This record gives sequence, structure tokens and C-alpha cells, in this order.
Amino acid sequence: MKIGVFDSGIGGVTVLTALRKRFPGVEFVYLGDTANVPYGTKSPSQIKSLAANAVASFAPRQLDALVVACNTASSLALDEIMATLPKVPVFGVVEAGVRATLDAHRAFTAAKTVLILATRATARSGIYSRLLTPSLGATTQVVEQACPLLVPIIEEGLLDHPLLHLAIHEYVLRHSEDRAPGIALLACTHYPWIKKAFERALPGWQIVDSANAVAALLEEALPQLKQAGNGPSKTEWLFTDPDVVPKFVFEA
Amino acid sequence: MKIGVFDSGIGGVTVLTALRKRFPGVEFVYLGDTANVPYGTKSPSQIKSLAANAVASFAPRQLDALVVACNTASSLALDEIMATLPKVPVFGVVEAGVRATLDAHRAFTAAKTVLILATRATARSGIYSRLLTPSLGATTQVVEQACPLLVPIIEEGLLDHPLLHLAIHEYVLRHSEDRAPGIALLACTHYPWIKKAFERALPGWQIVDSANAVAALLEEALPQLKQAGNGPSKTEWLFTDPDVVPKFVFEA
Repeated sequence: MKIGVFDSGIGGVTVLTALRKRFPGVEFVYLGDTANVPYGTKSPSQIKSLAANAVASFAPRQLDALVVACNTASSLALDEIMATLPKVPVFGVVEAGVRATLDAHRAFTAAKTVLILATRATARSGIYSRLLTPSLGATTQVVEQACPLLVPIIEEGLLDHPLLHLAIHEYVLRHSEDRAPGIALLACTHYPWIKKAFERALPGWQIVDSANAVAALLEEALPQLKQAGNGPSKTEWLFTDPDVVPKFVFEA
Repeated sequence: MKIGVFDSGIGGVTVLTALRKRFPGVEFVYLGDTANVPYGTKSPSQIKSLAANAVASFAPRQLDALVVACNTASSLALDEIMATLPKVPVFGVVEAGVRATLDAHRAFTAAKTVLILATRATARSGIYSRLLTPSLGATTQVVEQACPLLVPIIEEGLLDHPLLHLAIHEYVLRHSEDRAPGIALLACTHYPWIKKAFERALPGWQIVDSANAVAALLEEALPQLKQAGNGPSKTEWLFTDPDVVPKFVFEA
């Protein structure tokens, strides 16, 4: 069986890693639209058109499923991606993020804040507030925080650099000062690369990422993935601009 | 008369401002390829194709000249831009930057270092070393320093923010510590927006930008521009992704 994993850049590799672990023996095709990264600072119409255009290169590859491992594209371009690949079941990471957050909230009911850390485009779309608020109840508030410089910093490979820590501090300080610790969702697949830095900046908060939730979603929808055997999983790498991919990606 | 000014994003506005001042009465068309900013972290082949594609929208506008107000595109895609607009005289900002640097060096002959502050793509191209070294003489060294995070930080509008100062510190510290003050060329048209921050980080250095040198180049090649009158200059703004243009651009 063959699963496609799509992201604007290298963030989706955090999801790919979770999928490889859960489904050994499955073939993966990873596509990073590195020619157009970052998506998260672009406008909705631009994101829709870039995402549809990029995933077209999956068409000849006969995928059994496509994971849109990019919150920005999942928030804004899921319909366009489905229209481009009408025969492929498509799974977005937003649905998985919502599920992971609700699971975390059931275990941490005292949490009064769910902080959505995301690109500007995802935060502006308001999709997480819309999907989470009805299930969380009136005493828990969903707060969306755009963190536009984190993707460029991560794509530079500065995963434990003062610049990274200063940027994170900038984005989360007002929340950590004003609110009791709650749940913070890494609503951008780049951010698990810097999960430790978020843990440092948000002491006492539960930091949730959606990589395992995506894998669980896939397993429910396509149980045959678990029967693909235990052979070494094979990954084909596609990048729209291969020359700019940082080396640490392949060491993951 | 009508002049086109092209940049990947908003950096070229610093050049546009110099041109407007020198040539009142001339019409300007500014094109920012904001759908694809930043260019400077992309690969040469990608930059060539994006730049050629973007400037095609100047074709129906009957320009008298085009200024490529982007060092990355001037370093790597000038031939492709000229091929796209074969009837328009094209002026790149690299030639202007070289001239401004040599002028500065004639006034500051004690300078033993010329520091080229640029995007990664411009720094890697080595174009400034190639063009400057033969004219500077053996006692002055050209050092190219890539500053890949500055364009995203400027496009975020953080023109006097601790993140900006930390990033600049990171990029220039080794030079300011190891070398006597010399000449630093802002070899990216975004950087004049943050000239003060560079002055702070490089005390005693002469900071050169190429905006006025571009205007001088144009005046020599097309003296009729000075005869265009003194009417209020008119600017048409084109952005490939208009929704992401920060407001401070139009206040310049």
C-alpha cells in the first residue's frame, strides 16, 4: 500500500515519522512544496492554488491515501486538494488536531485555555475555534496565536537557538502570564521539531501535537494499513525545490 | 515616461523611493512578487523561473526601463528577465551596488574589509566578490555574509524589534569583533528598511545602500528621464499576492 504525505516544506516529516512507526511495510511518498514554503504567510487564494498545483504530482502515483500534513493547507485548501485527486481518500491534519486536543482536554478538564499555536493563515481562518468551541464547553476558551516567524526559523535549522527562543517568548508570553496553564496545540506540523522550546516557554502547559492522531485516524479509516507487513518502510522524497532542504530532515 | 521596478517583495520600495525623488513626473509601476517572497532562500533555477514569470506582467505596460530592485534576482536571473522583456532596457541593482561600494572605498581607502550583507542566494552566487575584487586591490578583502532571516523579519514589519537586533547581531558579530571597521554594503533591497539597526551593530563602519546609485545609473543611461517634468509622480502597485503586503510600505 502507498500513502502520500504533503506539506509546504519539511514540517510534514514529523507526521511521516509517526506514520512510518505505526505502519511498517507501507510505502510513503513525501512531497514538500519547498519552492513555495512558507504557505502560512500567504493569502487564502494563493494557498488554495499552490496546494492544488503541488498535489497534482501525486496523480500518477496511485496512492491509497493522502495525508495533508500541513495545517495551513488543511485549513484552507482541503477541498481543492480533494478536487485535484478525486480518487484518493484525503486526510487533513486539522481533524486530527481537533481530536488530539479533545482527548487531552478529557484528561485535563481543569484546563481553561486551549492555545492554538499556528501560522498566520491558519490562525486567521479560525478553523480550530470553530471546530473546538462546541465540544469544549463554555468554561474553556480557545485562543488562536499566529507565530509567523517560526517556520522560517525552523527551515533554517535553528532548532535550539536564541532567535528561536526569543520568537517563541514573543508569541506565548502574554498567554503564559495572563492565564493558568492549559493545553497548547502545535497546530503547524513544523512545530513538533521545536516542541522542547515550547515546553520551556509554557511551563505546566500540556503541549499536544497531532502526528499520532493522524496515524490513528488513518488506521480507523483504512484498517488494511496494519496488515501491510513489517518490512522496512520505503519513502520516496519529492521536493519542488530540492536544493533548499536542510539536511537534518533526513536524519529524523 | 514609465519605469518598472521589480522586487520579490517590498524591498524594492527603498529603490522606488530614491527613483521617485530623482525623477518627479515619471510614472512608476512597482511589481512585488509577494506570492513567492522570499527569493533569497530558494535555489538558482527556481529564482530564474519565478523572476522571468513575474516580470512577464510588465510586457503590456510599455516600459521605458525596468529596474530589477532585488539583489537576488539581479545576481541570478538578469538574463532570464532580459529575455522575457527583450525590448526594455533592464538595470540590475548589483551593478549599482558595486558602483556605490567603489565610490565609498575611494572616500575610505583605509577600509580593509568590504562586507556584503545579502540573502543566502546572493551570497552563494559570489557575484559581488567577483565584481569587486579586481577593482579594490589586494589589501581590501570582500566578505560575503548571508542573512537569511532578515527578509522574513522585515516582511513582518519588525523594523526595530529585539528579534531583528538579535538576528543582525548573529550575522555581523564575528565580523565586527575580528575586523577593523570597513564598508558594509546592504546587498538586499530589503535592508535599507533596517539601516539603523545595522549602524548600531557595526559601529564605525560605513553602511552603503545602492538605491541612489541605481538612480544615478538610470540618469546616465536615459537622460531624458530628468526632462519628464516636475508633476506629482504616479505609481501603479502590482503584487502577485496583494493580501500580504504590510501597510508600512505605503507610508514610505
